[in-house]
Amino acid sequence: MIIVIQCTDRAGLVASVSAILAKNLFNIVSLREYVDQAENLFFMRLEVSVGGDETTLEKQLLKVLPDDANILINPLPEKKVVVMVTKEYHCLADILIRNYFGTLGATVQCVIGNHNVLQDICRRFDMPFYFVSHEEVSKDIFEDKIAATVDKYNPDYIVLAKFMRILSPKLVAKFPMRIINIHHSFLPAFIGASPYRQAFERGVKLIGATAHFVSNELDEGPIIAQQTIPVNHSFTAADMVKAGKEIETSVLARALKLVFEDRVFVYKNKTVVFE
Amino acid sequence: MIIVIQCTDRAGLVASVSAILAKNLFNIVSLREYVDQAENLFFMRLEVSVGGDETTLEKQLLKVLPDDANILINPLPEKKVVVMVTKEYHCLADILIRNYFGTLGATVQCVIGNHNVLQDICRRFDMPFYFVSHEEVSKDIFEDKIAATVDKYNPDYIVLAKFMRILSPKLVAKFPMRIINIHHSFLPAFIGASPYRQAFERGVKLIGATAHFVSNELDEGPIIAQQTIPVNHSFTAADMVKAGKEIETSVLARALKLVFEDRVFVYKNKTVVFE
Amino acid sequence: MIIVIQCTDRAGLVASVSAILAKNLFNIVSLREYVDQAENLFFMRLEVSVGGDETTLEKQLLKVLPDDANILINPLPEKKVVVMVTKEYHCLADILIRNYFGTLGATVQCVIGNHNVLQDICRRFDMPFYFVSHEEVSKDIFEDKIAATVDKYNPDYIVLAKFMRILSPKLVAKFPMRIINIHHSFLPAFIGASPYRQAFERGVKLIGATAHFVSNELDEGPIIAQQTIPVNHSFTAADMVKAGKEIETSVLARALKLVFEDRVFVYKNKTVVFE
Amino acid sequence: MIIVIQCTDRAGLVASVSAILAKNLFNIVSLREYVDQAENLFFMRLEVSVGGDETTLEKQLLKVLPDDANILINPLPEKKVVVMVTKEYHCLADILIRNYFGTLGATVQCVIGNHNVLQDICRRFDMPFYFVSHEEVSKDIFEDKIAATVDKYNPDYIVLAKFMRILSPKLVAKFPMRIINIHHSFLPAFIGASPYRQAFERGVKLIGATAHFVSNELDEGPIIAQQTIPVNHSFTAADMVKAGKEIETSVLARALKLVFEDRVFVYKNKTVVFE
Repeated sequence: MIIVIQCTDRAGLVASVSAILAKNLFNIVSLREYVDQAENLFFMRLEVSVGGDETTLEKQLLKVLPDDANILINPLPEKKVVVMVTKEYHCLADILIRNYFGTLGATVQCVIGNHNVLQDICRRFDMPFYFVSHEEVSKDIFEDKIAATVDKYNPDYIVLAKFMRILSPKLVAKFPMRIINIHHSFLPAFIGASPYRQAFERGVKLIGATAHFVSNELDEGPIIAQQTIPVNHSFTAADMVKAGKEIETSVLARALKLVFEDRVFVYKNKTVVFE
Repeated sequence: MIIVIQCTDRAGLVASVSAILAKNLFNIVSLREYVDQAENLFFMRLEVSVGGDETTLEKQLLKVLPDDANILINPLPEKKVVVMVTKEYHCLADILIRNYFGTLGATVQCVIGNHNVLQDICRRFDMPFYFVSHEEVSKDIFEDKIAATVDKYNPDYIVLAKFMRILSPKLVAKFPMRIINIHHSFLPAFIGASPYRQAFERGVKLIGATAHFVSNELDEGPIIAQQTIPVNHSFTAADMVKAGKEIETSVLARALKLVFEDRVFVYKNKTVVFE
Repeated sequence: MIIVIQCTDRAGLVASVSAILAKNLFNIVSLREYVDQAENLFFMRLEVSVGGDETTLEKQLLKVLPDDANILINPLPEKKVVVMVTKEYHCLADILIRNYFGTLGATVQCVIGNHNVLQDICRRFDMPFYFVSHEEVSKDIFEDKIAATVDKYNPDYIVLAKFMRILSPKLVAKFPMRIINIHHSFLPAFIGASPYRQAFERGVKLIGATAHFVSNELDEGPIIAQQTIPVNHSFTAADMVKAGKEIETSVLARALKLVFEDRVFVYKNKTVVFE
Repeated sequence: MIIVIQCTDRAGLVASVSAILAKNLFNIVSLREYVDQAENLFFMRLEVSVGGDETTLEKQLLKVLPDDANILINPLPEKKVVVMVTKEYHCLADILIRNYFGTLGATVQCVIGNHNVLQDICRRFDMPFYFVSHEEVSKDIFEDKIAATVDKYNPDYIVLAKFMRILSPKLVAKFPMRIINIHHSFLPAFIGASPYRQAFERGVKLIGATAHFVSNELDEGPIIAQQTIPVNHSFTAADMVKAGKEIETSVLARALKLVFEDRVFVYKNKTVVFE
């Protein structure tokens, strides 16, 4: 069983929590704790043996923790997610494969695309695909359609798997820290459009990818995972795009795994990740 | 302050330890805990705020822990080490530099070499150098001389920084899990002599280095840290040796940092490393 | 256009080849050359601009090269491959996806499985799947069936995408240096069965994967690509298997890309790889 | 022997060069060639066997190459360098060690520091150290003093090994593409001061280092080498500084090796690196 706790720090929190676990006959298999001393915040993730008494555990814990405590006990054993895409297949295909073989750690409910080129791959996996074009409609109407589709599924997370439109603050505000994006650069380098073109112009020797929660500032949300790979002078901007797809896929997969296993805490514009 | 605990596992250990810390007014800044369930062993490393009452802390902790508990409170704030070398300079030089600038996390007491080529670099750092030749003496006499020199300094650890002689079980037994070696391969590949020659013959695309505690089986002791780097067809065995020196230096430096910060626990033929 | 040449080395080879290219109005965009001086072997890969005169190029080149020269001009623009699997999906799925989206650099003709669990994923991609069980038949009959199926397709390469049976020398001899395997360890560490179990027992801090051509010695064929990732004490053997799948997928994908782009030369038990 | 050529591209260059080498009895051991097709630029690096006739080689090559050709034959077998530092020791110490043991690929002539804290480590290696303070003098006078010291030695390269003052365009112009700097971030992320503080505020999961030639735009010169390492939430800005030192040392060492082995070509704001 997984228990995650986030709250204001104060003395004795580990003692209080672990005493309650012991009293209810849970054995702690693995414990990660971190205190941000500057912010006075406490984060804990526990894996405990099964077999203890869960019935009043949350209530007992709440009693000994600060009022702002956020506790999740065995949180959402099966997360539900909606995936949004444009035209590139690599991240979506990876997610569909893991979903199909039951190794994603979540269930994909549907895919929304602002182009329809990825409809066929979804069909092959019997995955509902909603084509919501951004063309010939206002941004408001476009996003209302997306929101309506998402609302139908009520997912825990929305995954932007190379969705190439910028979401408005209004839409982002509907799903605070529940939208996960993969950006095709090592943020904060190359914010915005055509990061590989920018990387090519600059003559960098590494390119990167960044998975992050979406906030209202473009490419400025809390970072979950990042990775870089070497490139050299012989890479055109197009070669960088191609090489980049491999790490985009792998960084997004890793970020989703971390989030779905309840290893990621968000505060301010940062994450605590217990890997 | 650092507290490390290793003992048989049983229910309630975290609760017991953290309750005592809270009672003595220590706040837990960072906590790492791991239970090897197959072996029923418990490992914990705590960083606690200063300011609590240390006077009877160890005694109080021992009372609530299993009889086999091994506790170290703020262990050996300044470790002392003896370094042993043969002819290659790279690991030794890195250690001497960090020692000189106070960033090693330990104090080098002296260097023992079975050749004298590294005497001058030691002299430049005012570091005692003992030339103990293995030539024209029996292995017993050679090792007795080494042991006598080491005993004079009574170090916490002996670091084999490219010491190219195999130590006898007798000498190893004198310093159980206190001798750290850097082996120039990704163990268990290429055990024994000339690993780069073996790697070259095999046509590998990565070469590695392994830092480990020395046990009586050649290159079989508990592994602390490992790293690999890419090579290709154009590397001769000599090129691999050269490239390998860079990661040998870096892997040994990392392993020493981990050991000197009390992040490494040894049991059976393995390590628990709280990075 | 790609030109690859492998032959005995002698003075003036680059001059002879490039003079012929210039005479036929080909411009060299990129040139990689390597001489194994110990073996006296010459390897060259050229990317030349289109537009020159190809008609007698091979004939002209053969005239100036040693008799043992192996020349491929724009070799096999679309390689054909047969994939063999057992039960694990990760490498196969990655290949099917790339094949479906036209980014594999080769065309998958069919999949052969000694279990039928991966039949459905193949069906979803309209990919022929042949279930050839190894059970209740002799190894000879089992392999004859495989060979018969392969022969029907006459592929350029056979990819063992986690095919967990050892091929007999007889079958291997039918496809010399044309069978590519992914082994789930950093060879030559952990040859043979259950490498992750072996890695777990040894307490390594990295695990790896190796893509190699299949020769008659188990896990001893020429290595194409290798990669490692960090693990730690908290990984069970099962966790290592899971983490390993990610790099198995990625190393095999990279090896296939290199082979399909004619960047890999084989000689003795080694490869020259012009990345 | 090493031969490097950089010039405008045109058809037949490889043929012309290799014909001359063959005529003068040089055998090509290794050849790297790259054409930037957008810029119409040709880059070649050859390692040829010794024993041929060098006397008129350059003259013969110039005759067949475009007028703008830049040829270096066995260029500067022993490069000479001046190192500039402020207070941090890690890059300087690594350079001094390699210089002392003859593995730097260049000879350090002297060290210039705008603080004197690294004077003692230089003294230990009998390395001339010039203390040129930037305090209480104008930038002009400060840089005139530096230039005067450098001029005394007439080095091939100036290495800024954590020199924390920005050089004026005037001084940079004196040594075009001959000043190598190590910047403590993955450029172009975190340009300018306190990159680790910026990285910490942004909550990145990787930090990096970049070695580059110095141009007149701050941190905008051609990049030679870059590397990143993982960090996490538990790293304070100070921890990032500490971790960063390790890759700063390693990236600068790698960049210097590449430059000193004549593997780096500069054009526009980019480099071609034949590794």
